[in-house]
Amino acid sequence: MKLENDIALAMRLADAAAAAIRPHFRTVAAERKGDSTPVTLADRAAEEAMRRILTAEVPRDTIIGEEFGSTAGTSGRSWVLDPIDGTAGFLAGRPIFGTLIALVVEGFPVLGVLDQPITGERWVGAMGKPTTLNGKPVRTRLCRELSDATLATTGPHYFDDHDGGHFMGLAAKTDHKRMVMGGDCYNYAMLATGQLDVVCEAGLKLHDWAALVPIVEGAGGTMADWNGDPLHAGSDGHVIALGDPARLEDVVEALACGH
Amino acid sequence: MKLENDIALAMRLADAAAAAIRPHFRTVAAERKGDSTPVTLADRAAEEAMRRILTAEVPRDTIIGEEFGSTAGTSGRSWVLDPIDGTAGFLAGRPIFGTLIALVVEGFPVLGVLDQPITGERWVGAMGKPTTLNGKPVRTRLCRELSDATLATTGPHYFDDHDGGHFMGLAAKTDHKRMVMGGDCYNYAMLATGQLDVVCEAGLKLHDWAALVPIVEGAGGTMADWNGDPLHAGSDGHVIALGDPARLEDVVEALACGH
Repeated sequence: MKLENDIALAMRLADAAAAAIRPHFRTVAAERKGDSTPVTLADRAAEEAMRRILTAEVPRDTIIGEEFGSTAGTSGRSWVLDPIDGTAGFLAGRPIFGTLIALVVEGFPVLGVLDQPITGERWVGAMGKPTTLNGKPVRTRLCRELSDATLATTGPHYFDDHDGGHFMGLAAKTDHKRMVMGGDCYNYAMLATGQLDVVCEAGLKLHDWAALVPIVEGAGGTMADWNGDPLHAGSDGHVIALGDPARLEDVVEALACGH
Repeated sequence: MKLENDIALAMRLADAAAAAIRPHFRTVAAERKGDSTPVTLADRAAEEAMRRILTAEVPRDTIIGEEFGSTAGTSGRSWVLDPIDGTAGFLAGRPIFGTLIALVVEGFPVLGVLDQPITGERWVGAMGKPTTLNGKPVRTRLCRELSDATLATTGPHYFDDHDGGHFMGLAAKTDHKRMVMGGDCYNYAMLATGQLDVVCEAGLKLHDWAALVPIVEGAGGTMADWNGDPLHAGSDGHVIALGDPARLEDVVEALACGH
């Protein structure tokens, strides 16, 4: 019952963020540089809208937002907010950025929402429930061989040279022809929906991945760091997601072989 | 008047392709390998639908399709079709692939359509007319300095080592933080809509770029090869698009400096 209430609250947060974001999509910046880009305006307006609701409804919960930092609570529960994941994609006019909302209880993300306010797609993952896209269950797909896997990452420019070498080690063992770049959080949603097999990224912060764990795992997949260990609040930002958990060892091994 | 008729015909082609493509989006392949992937089924069905209309309505025009090759005509006019540009993105479930339709007259693309059948976005460019998105005019944006430019490319894995070096030379002179990967033809549409400044790719075929020239140029931008020379049917597949034609020399110079 409590989880149902939290899901309903997360839906209201996503609605509020979407309403704040939409007016800024594909608008022209008055200033190309500085703080007044359309994405910054949208990011801030969306996080403010979500914080307002949380402060009113669950004042004892902690809020950790990408834009406005942490507001400590006393309940042991944290709402982790990334109003616009994929800011470069947003600025480039692509309707595949996302609003990420996670509820983290004692270090563990128990609820995650990814909302795409332009296409009107919303993925919801919650502990013990099947992940849904607009209310309908979605599933990851099986991947019998790593050589059949479709791999996604947002871009090589997000890796340093060292990480890039390891990524290339993984890429070489997957179906290179179908690899896709770009996408940010949307890649994890597509993995949860059975369209991709592996997502591999580095440099992610808690707000980039916390909401994605319940979404991916509730669809049958798994998420881990590059060593294959479970993600936790102190993880170093190296993240992999797999549609088929049976390939975890293969992926970790391929990453380790890169140099 | 003739051009209006050709535009109306291109709209019917795009409608037919969209109807053929939509049922295959985010479906699961019976076979992961081989010829029966959802994208192959969609690609073929869409090109067949377009060819059927062209054969009935303009039997003297040449048809050059990505899937079924050339059917020679006698009119000096060619319809160049790419039913799904961005097949990897389509397979990854991203709603930013596109159907490309170009009318090429005596080697020059005079009409181009980019249709995105999932989001319902359609860009139309025609010689002497402003480019439109769903009927409303769009414009590229100015870019005073290359260091302010947002650059897009589908992925580094589409460059060989030599081209990759030149691309890196360009990337280093642009606003690296905002660079986006992935996107295929959608990047050119976003450039025409004022969301991106430069697109740079290699290995493109006529059907990948012909429709984009009237779209980009009718919105105020320009397209060229990596030497800055105009594209023509015999171009070598190295393509740049600029929202602000005033930056052409800077882009060509930056590409030449890469190694």
